[in-house]
Amino acid sequence: MTEAFDVVDLIRTKRDRGALGTAEIDWLVDAFTRGYVADEQMSAFAMAVFLNGMERREIRDLTLAMIASGERMGFAGLPKRTVDKHSTGGVGDKITLPLAPLVASFGVAVPQLSGRGLGHTGGTLDKLESIPGWRASIDPQRMTEILAEVGAVICAAGSGLAPADGRLYALRDITGTVESIPLIASSIMSKKIAEGTSALVLDVKFGSGAFLPDIDDGRELARTMVALGEDAGVATSALLTDMGVPLGVAIGNANEVRESVEVLAGGGPADVVELTVALAREMLDLAGQPDADPAAALADGRAMDTWRSMIRAQDGDPDAPLPAARETHVVAAERDGVLVEQLALPFGIAAWRLGAGRARQQDPVQHAAGIDLHAKPGDEVRAGQPLFTLSADEPHRFARALDALEGAYRIGDPREKGSRGPLVAERIGR
Amino acid sequence: MTEAFDVVDLIRTKRDRGALGTAEIDWLVDAFTRGYVADEQMSAFAMAVFLNGMERREIRDLTLAMIASGERMGFAGLPKRTVDKHSTGGVGDKITLPLAPLVASFGVAVPQLSGRGLGHTGGTLDKLESIPGWRASIDPQRMTEILAEVGAVICAAGSGLAPADGRLYALRDITGTVESIPLIASSIMSKKIAEGTSALVLDVKFGSGAFLPDIDDGRELARTMVALGEDAGVATSALLTDMGVPLGVAIGNANEVRESVEVLAGGGPADVVELTVALAREMLDLAGQPDADPAAALADGRAMDTWRSMIRAQDGDPDAPLPAARETHVVAAERDGVLVEQLALPFGIAAWRLGAGRARQQDPVQHAAGIDLHAKPGDEVRAGQPLFTLSADEPHRFARALDALEGAYRIGDPREKGSRGPLVAERIGR
Repeated sequence: MTEAFDVVDLIRTKRDRGALGTAEIDWLVDAFTRGYVADEQMSAFAMAVFLNGMERREIRDLTLAMIASGERMGFAGLPKRTVDKHSTGGVGDKITLPLAPLVASFGVAVPQLSGRGLGHTGGTLDKLESIPGWRASIDPQRMTEILAEVGAVICAAGSGLAPADGRLYALRDITGTVESIPLIASSIMSKKIAEGTSALVLDVKFGSGAFLPDIDDGRELARTMVALGEDAGVATSALLTDMGVPLGVAIGNANEVRESVEVLAGGGPADVVELTVALAREMLDLAGQPDADPAAALADGRAMDTWRSMIRAQDGDPDAPLPAARETHVVAAERDGVLVEQLALPFGIAAWRLGAGRARQQDPVQHAAGIDLHAKPGDEVRAGQPLFTLSADEPHRFARALDALEGAYRIGDPREKGSRGPLVAERIGR
Repeated sequence: MTEAFDVVDLIRTKRDRGALGTAEIDWLVDAFTRGYVADEQMSAFAMAVFLNGMERREIRDLTLAMIASGERMGFAGLPKRTVDKHSTGGVGDKITLPLAPLVASFGVAVPQLSGRGLGHTGGTLDKLESIPGWRASIDPQRMTEILAEVGAVICAAGSGLAPADGRLYALRDITGTVESIPLIASSIMSKKIAEGTSALVLDVKFGSGAFLPDIDDGRELARTMVALGEDAGVATSALLTDMGVPLGVAIGNANEVRESVEVLAGGGPADVVELTVALAREMLDLAGQPDADPAAALADGRAMDTWRSMIRAQDGDPDAPLPAARETHVVAAERDGVLVEQLALPFGIAAWRLGAGRARQQDPVQHAAGIDLHAKPGDEVRAGQPLFTLSADEPHRFARALDALEGAYRIGDPREKGSRGPLVAERIGR
């Protein structure tokens, strides 16, 4: 027996609400990476963490151990400040698409390593792949070149960053242990810290469409991640934003690119513009430009110019028509009134069932599948007026999508036109 | 998707303290047996059950689903009543060895499907295999013949009984999820019910050497198992017995056989005799012989005759010398006084480290390794008098065994000679 610890003892410690020491966590992650600790054992450990939590110090140790399991990148040679952004994921959340070129248009480097979608929240790479020619995979050398020339890159994270986290995430996904603050925080921050950005802005969602619907959980997650970033020398702040209703009016892939381009052209839905500008302000502030005016860069075309360069740099054609779905199904209002409810989670599930998302990591997505909303909460509607349009390549998908939407929206009386809370509820950071 | 349920949904339900329905549990165990539900998923589920528990109805459903995963045996053709016994496992617990032939000597069939030891508690088959020639594996046909002729069989359970439980147990063992009342109860009772016995007596341990040290946990486990047995038409009762100190004076394999033979010869340590007789009374009562006198059958040689026939029926030689260890190490009393403490768990761990137990299922055991106690709590001892002897085939094993025994026993003043509670604390059943 040459191993430093007994894995069953460590699982039992967490099972019995104890805290693991730094050396124990280092060993556990290393032994898991080496294959000595089995997937079954890591799955039981993840459930014990889910149910019994971790102290701040344990979360930091877990994050550092995840980073140590792989390589680290760095942009120290770049003659620009680097700022990254991460969203915990939401329905209709296409903010990265207009945000990265918008911030880059101020001379800041935005290295955006993104993932693919799984479950009801979409993936940034899936959305961009609906642009003809666009490639998610580029090597680190080319990434640095694009950051120097264009300023913004949105690409696939290599498997070399925090590989232990990649393997643990795959287990969490199949074992019902995703929605855990210590596990989410260490997973996100290990990749972001390993990536080597000097600043990071987090968009932490709460509300029915978020992984952690409760705002208190969202705040705890945001605080945990901001502390992890600061401890690692990454200037980090977070916005706590409402994911109770879908963001914008497009949920899917190609339609979300279309909506993003509208925002870059100075238009687009008010909530998408508001969140894009708010996050851009945070990023520019951390990059040393507290007085920058991102709204102006949307209005005058600077952000759009950077978008077009960014898409072209990854072999995409920003002028090519985006794919359109073979079949559509329109749902109309049954009565006159005010749309008082539009729940993010069921709309996300419906878009996923239409083919916009994937059930398994290896599945493809259908780029033209999704939902376009024709009314948002607070809007007055008339009987017969279209409320939303479902799009899919395969008509058999409509029935299950409509099942998911049962009870997901409601038309009420005008006096029910209640006030929603602000989209950006809180800011967390220095 | 042709599966009736989503496994992640079921894990989440238990994770969030919900109860699973009968159809859900049936599906889960069946899908696990088929390999559709992965080991990683069952491991996370086991941890969720460990931490959040199960209702009585869920435990019954789990037990029945485990039984349904395999074949069922039956002894209906036998012209005798059948009574089985199960112990939750303890240090020095060799009771099955004298008990099975003792009860069989009253004309009752005792089909004792046993296991091998893992961790600090020994396995009945490991002990019997120290008898030259004795074989644990016999086919069901031969088993029935021996039950008809001799009355007692102690043999390995085939892999056909509750195979889902076998697979789940292997996962629990490596994931720190052994000590869970719902999982222990369903594991034990699924095999016992599938075996087809008409009555069952359970020896549920509490105290430092038991899987569940707390007597309240032991009582809850006993009640749960008695209810499961009664629901399945098996007359079931349980004794709650103290496992705070080792049972008898031998801990190991060959030395435990030697002690069992002493009991069958009318001698042996008082505690082993007391528990053997108490369990025999319970078994004979359930078999319709409430007035039988098991102590008399130990005294007059009837039990010993059945033992010899039972060992011979499985090719063992009851007269052959048992293996002796190559090395011994004697620990003597450091002072005059009274032995006031002798903790079962560290003595079990020490015997295991000497080679009497195994760390992994596939490892062999060393039959002559173990510990012989020369004093029991309450005994007066003099400085220099041997307290216990460690035996091993490999001398390097002594150091780690002695480490385990640090603080495991204590010699106090004569006025500390406190009173221990009774060995049999409670009876649970009709």
